[in-house]
Amino acid sequence: MVIIGGGFGGLAAVNALAGRGVRITLIDRRNHHVFQPLLYQVATAALSPAQIAAPIRRIVRGVPDAEVLLAEATAIDAPNKRVILKDGAVDYDYLILAAGATHSYFGNDNWAAFAPGLKSIEDALAIRSRFLLAFERAERENDAAARRAELTFVVVGAGPTGVEIAGAICEIARHAIPRDFDRIDTATARVILVEAQDRVLPGFDPALSARALHDLKQLGVEVRLRTRVTGMDSNGIDAVDEQGVALRIDARNAVWGAGVRASPLGASLGVELDRAGRVVVGPDLTAPGHPEVFVIGDLAHAKDPARGMVPGMCPGAIQMGRYAARTIVAEVSGGTSPRPPFRYKHKGDLATIGRNRAVAAVFGAKFGGFFAWLLWAVVHVMALISFRSRVMVMLDWIWSYMFFERGARLITGDRPDAAPADAAKL
Amino acid sequence: MVIIGGGFGGLAAVNALAGRGVRITLIDRRNHHVFQPLLYQVATAALSPAQIAAPIRRIVRGVPDAEVLLAEATAIDAPNKRVILKDGAVDYDYLILAAGATHSYFGNDNWAAFAPGLKSIEDALAIRSRFLLAFERAERENDAAARRAELTFVVVGAGPTGVEIAGAICEIARHAIPRDFDRIDTATARVILVEAQDRVLPGFDPALSARALHDLKQLGVEVRLRTRVTGMDSNGIDAVDEQGVALRIDARNAVWGAGVRASPLGASLGVELDRAGRVVVGPDLTAPGHPEVFVIGDLAHAKDPARGMVPGMCPGAIQMGRYAARTIVAEVSGGTSPRPPFRYKHKGDLATIGRNRAVAAVFGAKFGGFFAWLLWAVVHVMALISFRSRVMVMLDWIWSYMFFERGARLITGDRPDAAPADAAKL
Repeated sequence: MVIIGGGFGGLAAVNALAGRGVRITLIDRRNHHVFQPLLYQVATAALSPAQIAAPIRRIVRGVPDAEVLLAEATAIDAPNKRVILKDGAVDYDYLILAAGATHSYFGNDNWAAFAPGLKSIEDALAIRSRFLLAFERAERENDAAARRAELTFVVVGAGPTGVEIAGAICEIARHAIPRDFDRIDTATARVILVEAQDRVLPGFDPALSARALHDLKQLGVEVRLRTRVTGMDSNGIDAVDEQGVALRIDARNAVWGAGVRASPLGASLGVELDRAGRVVVGPDLTAPGHPEVFVIGDLAHAKDPARGMVPGMCPGAIQMGRYAARTIVAEVSGGTSPRPPFRYKHKGDLATIGRNRAVAAVFGAKFGGFFAWLLWAVVHVMALISFRSRVMVMLDWIWSYMFFERGARLITGDRPDAAPADAAKL
Repeated sequence: MVIIGGGFGGLAAVNALAGRGVRITLIDRRNHHVFQPLLYQVATAALSPAQIAAPIRRIVRGVPDAEVLLAEATAIDAPNKRVILKDGAVDYDYLILAAGATHSYFGNDNWAAFAPGLKSIEDALAIRSRFLLAFERAERENDAAARRAELTFVVVGAGPTGVEIAGAICEIARHAIPRDFDRIDTATARVILVEAQDRVLPGFDPALSARALHDLKQLGVEVRLRTRVTGMDSNGIDAVDEQGVALRIDARNAVWGAGVRASPLGASLGVELDRAGRVVVGPDLTAPGHPEVFVIGDLAHAKDPARGMVPGMCPGAIQMGRYAARTIVAEVSGGTSPRPPFRYKHKGDLATIGRNRAVAAVFGAKFGGFFAWLLWAVVHVMALISFRSRVMVMLDWIWSYMFFERGARLITGDRPDAAPADAAKL
């Protein structure tokens, strides 16, 4: 059988299939798994890429029946049960499609040059370069208005990633780097979080949204709710508020955390997709008409009675991966009973805003502050795939926590003094 | 006064000038200092970039009279005492020019695409991507000869960097990754070290060269001495041996550690340069006719009675930086005595070949093996600029040492499946 995608869903499936006598080919176009929930820490210079990523080959090394293929799948030929690669093809009996999603600019792809999204290590490094360069340019800028724009950071979308990035940039500007610059006061940097809906963390419990909003404001983040971005150029962002009043923000820096678009591999199945390009799967997570094709993770639109749809976060992907693996194992080992439907178990909500600041809804309790932050840190460190990363991430955090330091503050790329659009190519 | 270059020489000068009432402007086109002696560890996936690099602003944060400018100097206008920047100019009374060197292909710049050199973080990441991708391509290659070429690594130049890279690749192929691949035996990878002179580590004591050669062979590195590279293409390398016999090595991977070319800023002074473009400086390390322009580090050709020239390694750069700083401080504070000549103190030679294998010549003793390796490790870890890096590098090394692991085995870049020439752009 074939698994496409070495994210949380794909790896959970590999683990659940290990030792069950199923030959697995795991295809990914990258050689590494990325621990997505901490990607924003790379983007904000707290962690190095290697601390939140691990080679897929190393992760599945212990699974003797699994083979790893570094290749790019371009389409699924479902009638012939084949995965079409950029350079070849692979046949399957069962397929687990876990190719994930990327960011979407809702048709305004030209915004990508100005407001990069955060899905891969490369994205994180590009964002890191750009926000560090902003301070460097501000230091050399003599015009007050231009300096102001260099020191203004807009984060579009107040989901967990947007909230985390906004909080982290604010903390860095106020605590980590002020003493590094002579001519500017980095603590005067503005961080503006723009969200189209009426609260931050829209997928969370409203009480947590309220607490997060309070914490963000206390940190110094300006939050603009019910505000939609309508345009972008290299000098700023246009938006409209609920009343249709236009708004211009002069800013030279932006991060995109608003839209998600599922992998185009879903479309090649020729079945129903939702608006974000996700495959609308049946109760057994398979594509309609293709009981041998499971679609999981961010690429799947799986119904959930409580939430409408299983949320596109790690726990959902992992549960789906395990479900698909169990179902396949049962059938390969001769079972003929009908498949039980997939049931998503919601473990809780967790998001961090900054040092000592987080919100949590777990075990029926909702809380914020230091204990939520501690819970967030423990959950994420423990969940990191390899033990090595665990120890190192922990040490790095303890260090940053004690000294307000950011260790990974490197601007790399061919031309460190290049304009933002060029810096992104790193 | 102005210092160009935040390498070892430039930073040593800043430190020696701190608190002496001299206003310093430190110009670098990168925001980070790189601990060059460990760059090969990034190239071979043992360390992450942030572990051997530190933001220059953080390093000089404690020096109140120093200002950091992230800018690219394009020329020195010595008659008018100005540094010309890409976007502006800066006047100086004293200048310390410490802009370093890059690799030289002896006029064959087209070789760069095939055999990247190792001078910057970007270089290291490009080499890392390429050598990791070689194993991935070999795993998918069905043709035996092509697979052989994918698994053949040529290192050109047997100076310390070349020796270290050759040893590290050999160790990785034989110990770190064999279990990660199903179809190929990575332990059969060939590593060929090509050197034009008659021994490895030509700048070292001949006894150390002999020991290093022995260790390299034991590790499995094929060493070809008295062999000059004459051509390169994406399938291999052409060379000639001492007798003029032509040699073709089928190899898809190469690293360049042979030639060095000083920064072009030296040429803009309009004074005598040596063959590698270094400024031939006087006994006080200044450019002839410009007593206010000190040239130090890899950009300087400084005479040394014992060695002909001060070797282009960190200790020399640091000593030159301190000398220039002391001289300036003495004159600024009113001293009028003639400048004493610079005297280079050779601290010893150290190079590592692999785990437990190194050669050392210090305190009059010459030795190899485990203790040389331990000395090498201690010297390098202790010398790392920031304490943070020290702790982290140590932990990473202890870990790698115990588990033969390589933590930073990530292939990043836009197109992980791209051809070598493309992968280099990361």
